[in-house]
Amino acid sequence: MNKSQNDKKALSLHKRLGGKIRIIPAAPVRNRADLSLVYTPGVAAVSMLVAGNKKLARDYTIKGRMVAVISDGSAVLGLGNIGALGALPVMEGKCALFKTFANVDAIPLVLDTQDTEKIIETVLAVAPAFGGINLEDIAAPKCFEIEKRISDVLDIPVMHDDQHGTAVVVLAGLVNALKVVSKKMSQVRIVIAGAGAAGTATAKLLKAAGAKNIIMLDRTGIISRNRPGLDGHKKDLASWTNPKNESGSLQDALKGADVLLGVSGPRLCTSADIKLMAKKAIVFAMANPTPEIMPDEAKKGGAYVVGTGRSDFPNQINNSLAFPGIFRGALDHGVTKITEKIKLKAAHAIAALVPKPTANKILPDMFDKRVAPAVAKAVR
Amino acid sequence: MNKSQNDKKALSLHKRLGGKIRIIPAAPVRNRADLSLVYTPGVAAVSMLVAGNKKLARDYTIKGRMVAVISDGSAVLGLGNIGALGALPVMEGKCALFKTFANVDAIPLVLDTQDTEKIIETVLAVAPAFGGINLEDIAAPKCFEIEKRISDVLDIPVMHDDQHGTAVVVLAGLVNALKVVSKKMSQVRIVIAGAGAAGTATAKLLKAAGAKNIIMLDRTGIISRNRPGLDGHKKDLASWTNPKNESGSLQDALKGADVLLGVSGPRLCTSADIKLMAKKAIVFAMANPTPEIMPDEAKKGGAYVVGTGRSDFPNQINNSLAFPGIFRGALDHGVTKITEKIKLKAAHAIAALVPKPTANKILPDMFDKRVAPAVAKAVR
Repeated sequence: MNKSQNDKKALSLHKRLGGKIRIIPAAPVRNRADLSLVYTPGVAAVSMLVAGNKKLARDYTIKGRMVAVISDGSAVLGLGNIGALGALPVMEGKCALFKTFANVDAIPLVLDTQDTEKIIETVLAVAPAFGGINLEDIAAPKCFEIEKRISDVLDIPVMHDDQHGTAVVVLAGLVNALKVVSKKMSQVRIVIAGAGAAGTATAKLLKAAGAKNIIMLDRTGIISRNRPGLDGHKKDLASWTNPKNESGSLQDALKGADVLLGVSGPRLCTSADIKLMAKKAIVFAMANPTPEIMPDEAKKGGAYVVGTGRSDFPNQINNSLAFPGIFRGALDHGVTKITEKIKLKAAHAIAALVPKPTANKILPDMFDKRVAPAVAKAVR
Repeated sequence: MNKSQNDKKALSLHKRLGGKIRIIPAAPVRNRADLSLVYTPGVAAVSMLVAGNKKLARDYTIKGRMVAVISDGSAVLGLGNIGALGALPVMEGKCALFKTFANVDAIPLVLDTQDTEKIIETVLAVAPAFGGINLEDIAAPKCFEIEKRISDVLDIPVMHDDQHGTAVVVLAGLVNALKVVSKKMSQVRIVIAGAGAAGTATAKLLKAAGAKNIIMLDRTGIISRNRPGLDGHKKDLASWTNPKNESGSLQDALKGADVLLGVSGPRLCTSADIKLMAKKAIVFAMANPTPEIMPDEAKKGGAYVVGTGRSDFPNQINNSLAFPGIFRGALDHGVTKITEKIKLKAAHAIAALVPKPTANKILPDMFDKRVAPAVAKAVR
């Protein structure tokens, strides 16, 4: 099915459904006896118990199972700043995946503000009912501060999935792709096109996993320590990436590179650019819905392992392999922070599900029922 | 089953369930084909469509079906200010009732703030995903300002159910109770014990329905125009209730009264007090979970028609008869404000479902499947 056909079918499905999630009672309310337990007068005993000992909320209310998927719509998929209602179909889809892949109950909240302080205040204000907060599609660099400050205050896991979900799955895929091409994490030259949420978190996690030669680019080019006008976030990136302090364009960066990780936008490069890379190059072109380079183009340029963010090509590098299991594990095991160590363990747990990776099979299928339990176990 | 047994059973049920609602996908996500419609890449077409024309969110997202049940936990049932987590079991129950009675998808949000301005900001910030806002268990008098200011800004129905749900069902019950005792709304003396959210909205709606002799009381006694120290809200009440400007205690008010509406707290009065009332008195004792007077006590005092808020006595005066159908109707018919006219129509629609009321049957059963559709139709 081509894009236009798929789009039509997606539009028609969404209109028929009128929203992709439903709320149902966990127990039937059939009669007055049920009602006197689920609602008044019985519920008063539960309310008093939980009010008196707030920790019991995890056992007696939805707090023990419910995750909020929250976006301000400022960086939705690869579509940019399309606002709260534009973000809503994506957040609903994410909630459907949470349930499908890890039996996590998740609800979408899209915010009528894009102001950092107001986003933080709003998330903190609605937090009590939730056992986890999945931040989603919030633009960089404000996403870093928002995640950190919310996470510092709350005693539930808070994860900006565009950062850490992506980072975990990229690392999982890269671990196996490197096996396919017989190269080592500590020796490869890794080019990350895109210094936003995903690119930054990916670089950090790859470094934690042993990568030593990471070159990052934004729209202006390679991020180097002597580039004028860098903001605080990019100055920080420059301080621990780009070991030889190179500067220049994407093409300069790609010369001899072993890995290109695209977390930027559609149609960034061509097969001619890929030809600049080292032999047995790995290309993950993850912009959604249109990747930085289409897989056939990347292969034409000589790439050996190619992944995208899409479900209609091989090697889907999709957060859905990570976030459901991460939150499932956090809810199950009372984990209150998603640490770097947890992310490393989650990535290796995903990679381990494909013990003999090939160029067209570096990651488990998203519908592989082993994935979420394996990730949840790693989170413990 | 006595209260203590019911409480135990309620606690045990809540612990077993771990929360009373679940989120499920509206369509299965079984494979990559499903995923490419529900999520990327297909969802991008839906996001762009909705971002470009926000009115379409009602057709293509959960906005067309989803209500937020929001509380700050400041006035939960009759339990008082027990905070966000104490409120959560009640809000979950309410969401279960929304689905059970009117197929409305509702989610609970409990707020980690009790500040008027912050509550308003938070509700406005999370509003985009919702087609309606049910405010719940927020203390008076701040509930009046909160509801009004949120309702003024949003183009979706906003209803503080403690006010208007109660008012609608009380009016419905009173219309039929007056039939039972052959008295007229315009002629009866109505005592409302409680000048909070429920009492105030009930008084307003009864006045709109033709009641001319309403006496309101708070903890201090009858609210009269010459009582010193009244706040703005109570001054307003004094200006259009209490036609003879009486003052005194509950007992003073009850002398010769035809109707006592209790919306205050547990064990307010005794059978001796009810004996002060006129013949064929009507008593609705609606404090939850413990009413102002137990039904057998009220009958002992001579009350002819007795209702409570509870499901384990006859004549349950419970908002569940109103709120599911009101929001169902508002969602179905694109109603953006719950006006006084809508509430009157809803109350008469409920009353009309019991064409021949008796002392023990003034209202339809909450499980009568005709109720929500009848109310929804009246909302149109």
